Amino acid sequence: MHISLEKFDLPLNGEQISGTLLSPPQLMPGILFVHGWGGSQKHDLVRARQIAALGCIGLTFDLRGHEGTAAQRETVTRGLNLADLLAAYDWLVSRPTVDPSAIGVVGISYGGYLASILTSLRPVKWLALRSPALYEDAHWERPKQELNLDPSLYDYRRRLLDPDSNRALAACADYQGDALLVEAQCDEIIPHQVIANFSGALATARSLTTRVIAGADHGLSDKRFQHDYTQVLVSWFTEMITGMRKHAAKIAVEELAAASASAMRHEEGPQ
Amino acid sequence: MHISLEKFDLPLNGEQISGTLLSPPQLMPGILFVHGWGGSQKHDLVRARQIAALGCIGLTFDLRGHEGTAAQRETVTRGLNLADLLAAYDWLVSRPTVDPSAIGVVGISYGGYLASILTSLRPVKWLALRSPALYEDAHWERPKQELNLDPSLYDYRRRLLDPDSNRALAACADYQGDALLVEAQCDEIIPHQVIANFSGALATARSLTTRVIAGADHGLSDKRFQHDYTQVLVSWFTEMITGMRKHAAKIAVEELAAASASAMRHEEGPQ
Repeated sequence: MHISLEKFDLPLNGEQISGTLLSPPQLMPGILFVHGWGGSQKHDLVRARQIAALGCIGLTFDLRGHEGTAAQRETVTRGLNLADLLAAYDWLVSRPTVDPSAIGVVGISYGGYLASILTSLRPVKWLALRSPALYEDAHWERPKQELNLDPSLYDYRRRLLDPDSNRALAACADYQGDALLVEAQCDEIIPHQVIANFSGALATARSLTTRVIAGADHGLSDKRFQHDYTQVLVSWFTEMITGMRKHAAKIAVEELAAASASAMRHEEGPQ
Repeated sequence: MHISLEKFDLPLNGEQISGTLLSPPQLMPGILFVHGWGGSQKHDLVRARQIAALGCIGLTFDLRGHEGTAAQRETVTRGLNLADLLAAYDWLVSRPTVDPSAIGVVGISYGGYLASILTSLRPVKWLALRSPALYEDAHWERPKQELNLDPSLYDYRRRLLDPDSNRALAACADYQGDALLVEAQCDEIIPHQVIANFSGALATARSLTTRVIAGADHGLSDKRFQHDYTQVLVSWFTEMITGMRKHAAKIAVEELAAASASAMRHEEGPQ
């Protein structure tokens, strides 16, 4: 790790003290939140604030076709929304305070589908999916709105799928980071088979944590369901980030111990 | 914890995405290094760099009577050097990146004596003393150089002392933070009784870790002794800082869980 050294003179009653300030890079994990179809970044703000309190930079944003760009709701495609997500990711990673090797993505429903695909295009260390949606790869440039009107979607979401047959599942099968997969027990939109397909595809992730929100519907319409989900998400990020920091401290100590023999050759003896 | 929210528009192919960046305060522990009599901040730089790599801001400095101000060597007093230490502490704590509630001080020999007294004047969370020296309170304004010529010093350092009878020991007896006390096994300057007096005075610290560097002289003249001391210091700071971060994460989660019930009243339902 690069430690910057800054020499300075500290004035003291007309005299001065010579000092040296040593500073490590001030990098924090960056966590990106992707809302669902028909949602908005407002949905993510409470949880994003809680994750940020763990010592992370959070980023929420509105996918095109929502809020300020609601006029595009009928025309926006998965490709355009994936471009939105990539732009948000690239902007977050370019923040000077963000550690580009410690990026997490939290996606809900359609946002979980997009987040899964993102892992095949950009480095993601932590992937949290709540009730991730699934769509056939075909008709990629068809407006997203029309996908939900396709009568075959109902059957598609009830089939055991080979990860290779779907872009989002294939991305999960290649994913090497830590994954959290949260299911709503009484989800009327995303059937259990979709969750099972994601879970199977994530079998080779560095770690996989699956949880069910008891009694919950897709939208977590009851405050208790929202509370349960928040607890699951914050606990998981606490474990991930604390674990990473402990590991980083351990590595730093080992590296420095190995380097200290040479560095000490330049150190004076008796004091 | 205050999380700042910054709204922004991200341009994308002539359109724009609305986003919100959430940032926690970027504060790091600050660690202050106090060299011994006849030493300089150069002695501390290797170890300060290693501690900084744990994610801390380090500060080394030259006490008056050393290096650039060596001309004052015959006249500088404990009071003046304590003023140096206070000025360095206050400067460190005023850095915008330093967490004022997470300050550590590492003092060697005379620097350990001054560091002990500092804890009675400023908040210190972690106190690391290597072969701390001890002087009688009397003649506070006498030049430091002359204290070592006092024939009674030899006996004073071989007496079991009541902490109330000595300013440095009294400060240790009131100290509420974590303490590390490192003894050089074959110290020809600081006898074991001095270490025992410090250890006894630190009995009510939040935690006390005492270690002996086997075979070492006062100045750690052998590279192996320096290596052993560095290992002890870095291991201790790793435990302290990792422990603090884990605790902070736990508190943040608990606070947020308690606050989430009210915050969620403002959250939308189905997504």
